[in-house]
Parts: sequence; C-alpha cells; structure tokens
Amino acid sequence: MLKGNAIVGQSGGPTCAINATLAGVIRGAFKCPAIDRIFGARNGVEGMLAGRIVDLNTLIKGEDDIRLLAATPAAALGSCRKKLPKIGEDDATYEKLFDFFKKNDIRYFFYIGGNDSMDTVAKVSAYAATHDYEIRVMGVPKTIDNDVVGTDHTPGYGSAAKYIAVSMQEMIRDCAVYTVKAVTIVEIMGRDAGWLTVAAALPRLNGEGPDLIYLPERDFDNDAFLEDVKAALERHPNVVVAVSEGLRYKDGRYVGEGTQSGVLDVFGHKYLSGTGKALEMLVKEKIGCKVRSVELNILQRCASHIASKTDIDESLMIGEAAVECAANGVSGKMMCFERAEGEYSVKPIYNNIEDIANKVKTVPDEFINARGNDVTPECVEYLRPLIAGENPIEYENGLPKLFVIK
Amino acid sequence: MLKGNAIVGQSGGPTCAINATLAGVIRGAFKCPAIDRIFGARNGVEGMLAGRIVDLNTLIKGEDDIRLLAATPAAALGSCRKKLPKIGEDDATYEKLFDFFKKNDIRYFFYIGGNDSMDTVAKVSAYAATHDYEIRVMGVPKTIDNDVVGTDHTPGYGSAAKYIAVSMQEMIRDCAVYTVKAVTIVEIMGRDAGWLTVAAALPRLNGEGPDLIYLPERDFDNDAFLEDVKAALERHPNVVVAVSEGLRYKDGRYVGEGTQSGVLDVFGHKYLSGTGKALEMLVKEKIGCKVRSVELNILQRCASHIASKTDIDESLMIGEAAVECAANGVSGKMMCFERAEGEYSVKPIYNNIEDIANKVKTVPDEFINARGNDVTPECVEYLRPLIAGENPIEYENGLPKLFVIK
Repeated sequence: MLKGNAIVGQSGGPTCAINATLAGVIRGAFKCPAIDRIFGARNGVEGMLAGRIVDLNTLIKGEDDIRLLAATPAAALGSCRKKLPKIGEDDATYEKLFDFFKKNDIRYFFYIGGNDSMDTVAKVSAYAATHDYEIRVMGVPKTIDNDVVGTDHTPGYGSAAKYIAVSMQEMIRDCAVYTVKAVTIVEIMGRDAGWLTVAAALPRLNGEGPDLIYLPERDFDNDAFLEDVKAALERHPNVVVAVSEGLRYKDGRYVGEGTQSGVLDVFGHKYLSGTGKALEMLVKEKIGCKVRSVELNILQRCASHIASKTDIDESLMIGEAAVECAANGVSGKMMCFERAEGEYSVKPIYNNIEDIANKVKTVPDEFINARGNDVTPECVEYLRPLIAGENPIEYENGLPKLFVIK
Repeated sequence: MLKGNAIVGQSGGPTCAINATLAGVIRGAFKCPAIDRIFGARNGVEGMLAGRIVDLNTLIKGEDDIRLLAATPAAALGSCRKKLPKIGEDDATYEKLFDFFKKNDIRYFFYIGGNDSMDTVAKVSAYAATHDYEIRVMGVPKTIDNDVVGTDHTPGYGSAAKYIAVSMQEMIRDCAVYTVKAVTIVEIMGRDAGWLTVAAALPRLNGEGPDLIYLPERDFDNDAFLEDVKAALERHPNVVVAVSEGLRYKDGRYVGEGTQSGVLDVFGHKYLSGTGKALEMLVKEKIGCKVRSVELNILQRCASHIASKTDIDESLMIGEAAVECAANGVSGKMMCFERAEGEYSVKPIYNNIEDIANKVKTVPDEFINARGNDVTPECVEYLRPLIAGENPIEYENGLPKLFVIK
C-alpha cells in the first residue's frame, strides 16, 4: 500500500457538479486507509506551484459538509486554465511541482477538469515515472458540454440538461398565453456539439416541447429554417425554437457572425450579435411576425438549485471511485462512466487519456431527424435518466445554502 | 345574497403567481354559497366576447389540482392585451359582453391582471351600475414589476425576486473561480422601476452579493460607473454588477440605446443592444479587462420551479379574498396587500381603482444609497420575507408537473 497525503484540484470552466466530484474525492480520501491527509489546491496547479493550499481534513467536518459542498455550484477551490509545459521543455516547473509534492508527502493527486486537466494528469504521471517519485495521478472529467469520448456522459451534463429542460418547459408555458403569432428563439450553449441543445426536447416527456431544434452537427440554412418556422406558425401561433450557439452555414461561417457581418459598434468593433439575435432579426425581416430571442447564458452551468440528483450522486460516486482506483495502484488515467444495458445504471471505469484527449463526441446521427430540425425519440430516451431526481437543497433566508471556501 | 355563476379571466404578461391567484379564486368560488358554477374565460375578455370559456367545476377536480395549478407558470387560461372602449363610445362591445353575462347568469367577474385589467374592472362595474344588471366585478393585480401603488407588493413579485436572487447567488459563485480580473454585468427587467434589480442584493443575506447595483430611479453616468467598477476591481478580481434594463442618462436616453446610436443592422434597423451589452462594450473599451453581460430575460417571470412559497401562498389567499369581498357586496375594486408592523404578515384589503391606475411606484429614496450604486440594508429587509420559503413542486420525469388547459 502506497501511504501518504493526497491533493485535489479543480480546473477549467465551472459546472454544477464539479464540487460534487470534489466532495466524492474528499469522502473517498477520508475512507481510504492509505491516505493520511487531503489538501485542496487553490486554483488548480497554479495553487500547487504557489503553495496556496487548504487543509480539507479541517475544512470538511463531516457528511453534512460533504452534501453541502456537493450542492454548491462552480469550483469551491477556485479554477485555472494553466497547461503544464511539455516534459523536457521547462523542467523548472516540474521540479517546483515535485518539490511541493515531496515537501507535503503528496502520493495521490486528483484533478477534476476538462481537456487541459487531463493533459496535466498525463504529464505529471509520465514525469513521475522517470523521476523516482511514486505518486498516483487520476483525472476526473467535468463538462456541461458532454462532448467527451470514452464515457457515456460527463459529470455536470445532467444538471445543465435539467436546467435547460425545466427552463424550456417554463418558457413554452410563458409563450403560450397570447393568440398573436409569435416566434421565440432560445439560444443554448454548445460551440461544436449540440448536447445541451438537445435537452430542450425533454419537456416532451410531460407533453409539450419546442417546435424546432437546430444543432451544430448539421449545416444551417436560412431558407430551410424560414420554411420550418412558417410551417410551425400554421400549426399554432406560439412557435418556440431551440438553437445551439455554434450553428454554422455550409461555408463555415457562424450564424451569429454572418448575419451581422459589416456591422460595427461605436468603437469600431465587429459586432457579434449571437446566434439567437441573428435569427431573431432574420425572422423579423422575412416573416414579419412578433419575434424575440433568449440566451440562457452562464446559468446553464451554475444553476445548482435545480441540479439533477442523478448527476450529483454520480459525480460524488466517480470522485470516490477515483480514490479507490488510485489506492489500488491505477495512475495516469481518466475516470469514465459505462452505462449498463436495460434499466439505467452506470459504473465507474477508467480509460487511457491519450485515447480521449482532443477528441470531440458530437450528437450521433441516430439522435437527429432527417431534416435536421429536431431530435429523435431515441435521443430523448438517452437523456431521460440523466435529469432524473432533484438534488436536495438546504435553504437559508430563501436562498440555497452554499459551501464557500474563502 | 346575490346568487349566480362566476367567471374569471387573466390578462397582461404572465408571472409565476397569476395561476396561483386563479387557483385562489377557484377555491374561493367552490367554497362560496352564492356562487353556483365558475367558468374560465380563454384569453381574458377576448374569450368572453367570443364565447370561448371552460367549465372550471369540471376541470379542477379538487385540492390537488388547485395546488398543481398554483405551481404552474404563465396564464393557464391564456391572456390578452385587450382594453375595453370608453363607455358611450362603442356600446356594441358592452352589449355583447353583458349578453354573455346574462346568457350564462354571470353575477361575479374576477379579473387578474395589470393596469389594463383594472381598467376593464372599473368600466364593466360602471356600465353595470347604469344598465340594470347586477354583477360584482373584482380586480386582482399581478406583476413581477412590483410598481403598483396602494399595495405593499404585488402577487408575482416575490417569485421573480427569488429567481433573480438565487440566480445571482449562483452566478457570483460561477464568477469567483478565476484569479484574472473580470467584470460580469447582469441585466435585470424593469423599464421604469428598479424593483426587480434590487432583488440582486438578496444573496448578501447569506454572505455574498453583487459589487454594484444601478437602478432607473437614478440618472446613469458613464464616468461614475467606470470609477465604481475600477474601485471594485481593486478590492477583488471578480466584479459582478446588477443593472436595470431601463437605465437612462440625465438627458433621458436609454443606456442600451445611447451607446449603440448610429449602429444599424444589415436590414437597416436601428440596433438596440440592451443595457448590459452596452455597458459590456463600455467596460471593454475603457477598462479593457475581461467582461461579459448576461440578460436574465423571460425566465424572471416564469421560473416557477423556484417560486417563493410566500408569494404563491399569498396569491392563493388574495384570490380567495377577492371572492369573499365580492360575495359580501364589494364591486369595482382592486385587491391589495397591507403589511403588518413588526413580524411579517399581510392581510388582503381593497382599494379604489382610480386611486391606483396609471401610477407607478418606484423604489423609494431610503432604499438607495447616496452614490446611487447600491441598495440600503433597509431595502434588503423589505425584500427578505417576500422570497421566504420554497413552493413545493411535484416532479414527473425530472421536470415540474404542470396543470395545462388545452
């Protein structure tokens, strides 16, 4: 058994579940006989290099704190976007990092984040292997974008999908009140993959959904779009459309950029209106009915008051599993979810980082309808279990109680 | 006792609580010995004039349906923006309306809505008084804007305020993860009054709030704003600013319009970027740090999954109270809330419509700090009870179950 201390860090953009994974790692470390103390690095590797760490054995007083941390959005330890240099190019950084590990007897390193974090995991693991210091390094992915290969879905995605689905259901009700023809265009995050946008279809499970859904997996065409919207307006007066921010024309131009080309603001900047706004103007011009656009924005990744219980529970579980794997001798790997056949369940597995990094998993063809303006029932079935359950929230003064590390 | 049937309608923009008031009216009618049946008008007076009504005695099967309806956002009966003509100018409309009343033995008319609805209440009541048909007409206000005089607050405001407060708390966490200087500007609804924007201060009750809050009650000044932002950036790297959509310069120009003046889109339209976007560009230009803007948009009025229990309970109560008042002989009035001194409670009262209509209640001076860039603790204390409690939500397939009238 490799005995020593552990450190955990968070990196990349925040989500609703990155603290749940952190809480899982902490819970796992508290249980693990090999791990003496667990430290938290402030702002990921930045904090490790600067010696900015917190003692999680002191900060986290028990299961109540674990649950509260798991219900807190964003990255409680702070995040960073730092990428380690290539091994051999800047040894000073690695020496500094390993000095830190040695000084604090760090034998376990858990890193929760996106592609850059997995790159760090691979590099630290490789450096350790050739420098006579035994340390086990494990990565746990997080992203609302769900665009990671090797895993059924990513921790954080289910909560973002739930927020989008719930918001969509409420906005569809809001849009339904008048008898005047009107189009509402909802812009949802996702530059290269439509995973978040497909979640807009979920209200159909309860009877009402958007009329049209457009994903970056298909070339966007203004004429086909206007035809679709006109046909929908024939069916009922209140048309709701979900669009990915990353919609592109066949020639590669972003929709949000294309319609606005040539427009400069008063400072002379090129004005990027956003995809929803561009399509709003297109409908106004070409159809002429009442139209508005809504951008869901950063709440998609931080609205933890409506987090998916499945997502939060799984994120806790995968954090704990990372500790168990490391204690059992695994290093330099990334944790993933494998979905069982039949009734929904996932089990944590690990994969090689080089098989995963820098690949993008887009929405598969069988999830998109032939015309490219909607998702299939198969897609809704894939999504259904990921938003199941409501993570319990403790309220104080009418607001969710959060676990904030100052 | 005036015996007969009742009709209820909804009008104006939707909120999270307008269905709770509807549910209260229905509950009150079910209990009221004077009322035989209660009908719902589809799309307010539009539906009454077109004979489009539903039988609520059949549709609402008991207290479970009442609670589900109360938890459903927007206007379940549909809404309208119709204003009745002046009495004497177009008798045909009134004759048609009163024919409908007579045909269906309607003796009670409850109208839930904004200023236009209260105008309808006053006119129908006045017309009835001189046309030998006894009908009691009561208005119940609803608006997320809270800008109505004669009432401590409006039904619907507490839930909108809670959504804004919860979202703000989550976005502040989201913004806190990096160490790079960044400004986040959150645009909140409110053209003439800052009531919704002041709710952004509520996360302070739990320890964290926005750095700056700007309301339409004060002239906006670019230089003072930039000074404020720079000072906040000195204190910590992640600055969060809440702004009302209705911010105006001293000369009356809207901030969202001013900064964009002269900018036309490709169709030649004047481009109104919105207040948040305009200030984002100002900060980018004059300070140069990372900056983004977020527009909370229509979810402010329809995010019923996080509705204030206080708001929903009070909205049910004021609907019931409207029925009781009418049964006791009151007509042509608008229901209001009177707040008790000391421990928070409200009681339903009624006021004359002419004392209320077309007046705007803005945020009072004592709720705004001297520099006009924040609210006072007194303001937070006024708001605190309005967001208290979470309205219980029934979930189905991971989404709130709603009561939809097709």
